[in-house]
Amino acid sequence: MPVSRPLVTLLTDFGTADGYVGEVKGALLMAVPEADIVDISHDVPPQDVESGRLALARYWRRFPPGTVHLVVVDPGVGADRAAIAVESAGYALVGPDNGVLSPALLVPGAVAVALAVPPHAAPTFHGRDVFAPAAAALALGTGVVELGTPYEHAVVRRTPEPERWGDGTLRGEVISIDHFGNAVTNVVGLRGGTLEVAGIVITVSRAYADVLPGALIAVTGSNGLLEIAERDGSAARRLGLARGSPVLFRAKKEKGEKERGERRESH
Amino acid sequence: MPVSRPLVTLLTDFGTADGYVGEVKGALLMAVPEADIVDISHDVPPQDVESGRLALARYWRRFPPGTVHLVVVDPGVGADRAAIAVESAGYALVGPDNGVLSPALLVPGAVAVALAVPPHAAPTFHGRDVFAPAAAALALGTGVVELGTPYEHAVVRRTPEPERWGDGTLRGEVISIDHFGNAVTNVVGLRGGTLEVAGIVITVSRAYADVLPGALIAVTGSNGLLEIAERDGSAARRLGLARGSPVLFRAKKEKGEKERGERRESH
Amino acid sequence: MPVSRPLVTLLTDFGTADGYVGEVKGALLMAVPEADIVDISHDVPPQDVESGRLALARYWRRFPPGTVHLVVVDPGVGADRAAIAVESAGYALVGPDNGVLSPALLVPGAVAVALAVPPHAAPTFHGRDVFAPAAAALALGTGVVELGTPYEHAVVRRTPEPERWGDGTLRGEVISIDHFGNAVTNVVGLRGGTLEVAGIVITVSRAYADVLPGALIAVTGSNGLLEIAERDGSAARRLGLARGSPVLFRAKKEKGEKERGERRESH
Repeated sequence: MPVSRPLVTLLTDFGTADGYVGEVKGALLMAVPEADIVDISHDVPPQDVESGRLALARYWRRFPPGTVHLVVVDPGVGADRAAIAVESAGYALVGPDNGVLSPALLVPGAVAVALAVPPHAAPTFHGRDVFAPAAAALALGTGVVELGTPYEHAVVRRTPEPERWGDGTLRGEVISIDHFGNAVTNVVGLRGGTLEVAGIVITVSRAYADVLPGALIAVTGSNGLLEIAERDGSAARRLGLARGSPVLFRAKKEKGEKERGERRESH
Repeated sequence: MPVSRPLVTLLTDFGTADGYVGEVKGALLMAVPEADIVDISHDVPPQDVESGRLALARYWRRFPPGTVHLVVVDPGVGADRAAIAVESAGYALVGPDNGVLSPALLVPGAVAVALAVPPHAAPTFHGRDVFAPAAAALALGTGVVELGTPYEHAVVRRTPEPERWGDGTLRGEVISIDHFGNAVTNVVGLRGGTLEVAGIVITVSRAYADVLPGALIAVTGSNGLLEIAERDGSAARRLGLARGSPVLFRAKKEKGEKERGERRESH
Repeated sequence: MPVSRPLVTLLTDFGTADGYVGEVKGALLMAVPEADIVDISHDVPPQDVESGRLALARYWRRFPPGTVHLVVVDPGVGADRAAIAVESAGYALVGPDNGVLSPALLVPGAVAVALAVPPHAAPTFHGRDVFAPAAAALALGTGVVELGTPYEHAVVRRTPEPERWGDGTLRGEVISIDHFGNAVTNVVGLRGGTLEVAGIVITVSRAYADVLPGALIAVTGSNGLLEIAERDGSAARRLGLARGSPVLFRAKKEKGEKERGERRESH
């Protein structure tokens, strides 16, 4: 179900300076000159599948249905990991079978196929020789199921769930550090309460600007998860936070206030 | 007055790796699938409104009239700073009311409106939930004045004017350091003369290549302002320059040579 | 021979944050609003002509014929180096005459012209005032030969050839370090053999994933040249490699195995 002008988004860890992204874009446009290529990022940390997965979770369903999402964060290129295409919720996705496409695979009704790797494909660059041609075919209207053989056991990665302790405290963790140094946790945003992190207790507020510059704050981020920020600064640097750093969320004491909140989108 | 194929440029401090830019692009294309999104930069230093303002000054009038410029450098997101749209010189601009849109606001006849913030908007991400929808509406042909309520007192930032001393010397300052380590000043480029900076006196020349590699040089940059460069190197690193570093410009001694020159574009 | 929708690719060392790239894109779109601008990179190391040349070699022929490639890595801007346009193999290219366009110049039948520099051109920014207008004219269908005066002696840079020693050993060198820290050499990939680098002997394998994470490996990269990689790490950092670091390739001892292999594309 391609849109009138085929949209293909690109998320990679290639950087841009070597020309690898240029090769992928050339391969796409050679096959589909009218395609509209939308750069998401080429600055995923090298080979960091988890960062790619979390970025994809944010944007893939915000594009017009029919959009083709090409995702290449692929430390296992050339080994026996499968190359897959996924049809999910009206979108098509292409990438390695290492969990990076999990946000789409987790949607009920998602279908995956394994792509054939042509003999001429460079074993170091499936982005150009396997994934781009598949994305081009999808952009031209080929269905995912026509592109490969049924593939049932795609790797799925999930954001870990916080532990719920007896007293209602949630024991979660930092799942990513964003460009601003904000530490995103796996705790779904709730109204009120406190977040304990790195030995400090922070009151949950509504917006970064609710505190003075330089102050620490916890807010519900734009994906519905609690995050720790420093107003006009980097909370991660200040508190030494990294992926996996533990956090403790305690709801406000008022009755009925605990466990509210709604995850705005799934990860 | 949209162009035949709506053009929307993006300038942000989001970086790209987290997927925030992907969310903004998705929101735009979901509403206007035929839009042509042009990346200016997502690498404005985080929350550096001044850098955003100076970058915007360079490019906004170089695009076809009707282009929509989306600018999100927004340390005050979620606080009581207004979200605005501006119509100026045949262009439409959208962004926070913190001075980043000043180049357009300063043009006579510019009109600004305050955008409503819908209740569902994430208080941490107006780029996605307030500015992108406004830019999409503008790209579809809605006029700026239809988008919000009249807004008279938008924040305006200006490049500081140099001081003129009794002997004709101009006391200016560095206003930005560019990607090459060139230090751009607020002194309008003049023919001839010398620039004193960090205790060194540099003769004003015409082009970087007028000196040998490794030499320091002062030239009139492509926006009409004097800048200090090191041929094939970084003047800012070599001289320890930063925004605000003072400079002294002395015109050539010949009569009639002082105070000439023309600012090619306004900041 | 423009494609139905003119494609213009951009490779520069401008970075994006200052707005220079925005100015170039504005100049292009003002002249050709329907152009599709494809970002290759703006992160070529500042003034590193050699990196620009190697990146261009990777992608220029992968785009649809008729594509216009704009390349601006230009330490000599404003000096007496020529500004040129090149027609080669059905593509048009525009950039400074410093060797960065060599991949296209080396193709038999390539034609180059010198572009006039208009008097109003900023001597610090030919990307905006000389190259972008030329690329726009090409995108509109003007032929390269109509754009300037014949230019016979364009600067050509070549990847150095490895030395062949009496015993069949090839003495090559590292020609670039890519985003992943892989060290690309000038030795055409062969089946089997060993590569000696930084005092270590590495067996040539097929794909990064043929070794365990953390191990060093030599493989034929996607451009047909041997490269040294660390699985899930940076070989360049680990071994202290840089452009020019020497390598020794020794073919497998079996008869008939030496000197096979095929360069997949020329540099």
